[in-house]
Amino acid sequence: MNPILPDASLDQLFRMARTQNAWRDEPVSDEQLRALYDLMKWGPTSANCSPARIVFVKSDEAKRRLEPALSEGNRAKTMKAPVCAIIGTDHAFYEKLPYLFPHTDAKSWFEGNQPLIDTTAFRNATLQGAYLILAARSIGLDCGPMSGFDNAKVDAAFFAGTQVRSNFLVALGHGDPDPKVLFPRSPRLSFDEACRIE
Amino acid sequence: MNPILPDASLDQLFRMARTQNAWRDEPVSDEQLRALYDLMKWGPTSANCSPARIVFVKSDEAKRRLEPALSEGNRAKTMKAPVCAIIGTDHAFYEKLPYLFPHTDAKSWFEGNQPLIDTTAFRNATLQGAYLILAARSIGLDCGPMSGFDNAKVDAAFFAGTQVRSNFLVALGHGDPDPKVLFPRSPRLSFDEACRIE
Repeated sequence: MNPILPDASLDQLFRMARTQNAWRDEPVSDEQLRALYDLMKWGPTSANCSPARIVFVKSDEAKRRLEPALSEGNRAKTMKAPVCAIIGTDHAFYEKLPYLFPHTDAKSWFEGNQPLIDTTAFRNATLQGAYLILAARSIGLDCGPMSGFDNAKVDAAFFAGTQVRSNFLVALGHGDPDPKVLFPRSPRLSFDEACRIE
Repeated sequence: MNPILPDASLDQLFRMARTQNAWRDEPVSDEQLRALYDLMKWGPTSANCSPARIVFVKSDEAKRRLEPALSEGNRAKTMKAPVCAIIGTDHAFYEKLPYLFPHTDAKSWFEGNQPLIDTTAFRNATLQGAYLILAARSIGLDCGPMSGFDNAKVDAAFFAGTQVRSNFLVALGHGDPDPKVLFPRSPRLSFDEACRIE
């Protein structure tokens, strides 16, 4: 049976981790982005459909293409993040099922059923976005997830000619813990407000 | 700066963790379910909106109410799991924003904008479902996530009279590692198939 993770790991993943608003001047390497993907890719998706497509926006040129799509409040801080991951959702994900789920004809479950395609794509790419956040924290990176941006502009700038649509963004780097830029933590719902055991 | 988690923790969370199809006869306590929630609740959501509502189906009576909603292939194994978590999405989540996001009137961003409500609810409750999966693995539990069920039947049986709608299910317990019941691992997309760095 698996043990409970060390307290320091639970703190790093969940209890002490914070959404960052400002970034220290410390780079994120391509090797770290590959290590991040090599963890998050193992997270479970329905029929292993793996619909997330990720653009790691890192160069000044790519940041300039992203900038006009960001909401006012997200613009300056995102330009200063070492990397901003665009979590995209591939609505043609089922084309890859013969490879990803080879033991049955899962592709035929989806073909021609657009509502099932769209719901499956959105749910599972979002799950993978959460795996990315926790995988980033697992390798010592901080995250700043955001959904305040113009999806159509991001899609035009990064996913033109594909069936990938932007889902949400995750800035990646090392956060500045200065309390002038890191907001006080907001409250969470209690167990009894959010859950019940039946 | 945070370190990389110990290799054993990365294995437990990502690299060795498997979606389970059969369960050993080992209980999951209510205290474990509370510990699970006390980790997953810290995962980030947009404007801290926290729309997941979770029913932990544990008693024989509750399992009998869940059973007819499950797809054929998910029925027997789910009845044998110590617990099955129903991840619900609360489409009235914005009513709680004055408590969850007190420094601005975030409730007004949503009122009357049903497409924004629905997208925000689905994206963020799904993120929280992924946090639940990784929090469960963090405390030594195995997971069996599923979306093969009749949502309307689950909603009628567990969320009647609310604006909560079922999103997906996660069986929880201690998996049976017997290779006769644990399928071989399916492949994942390579970094270059799923990602690019710009």
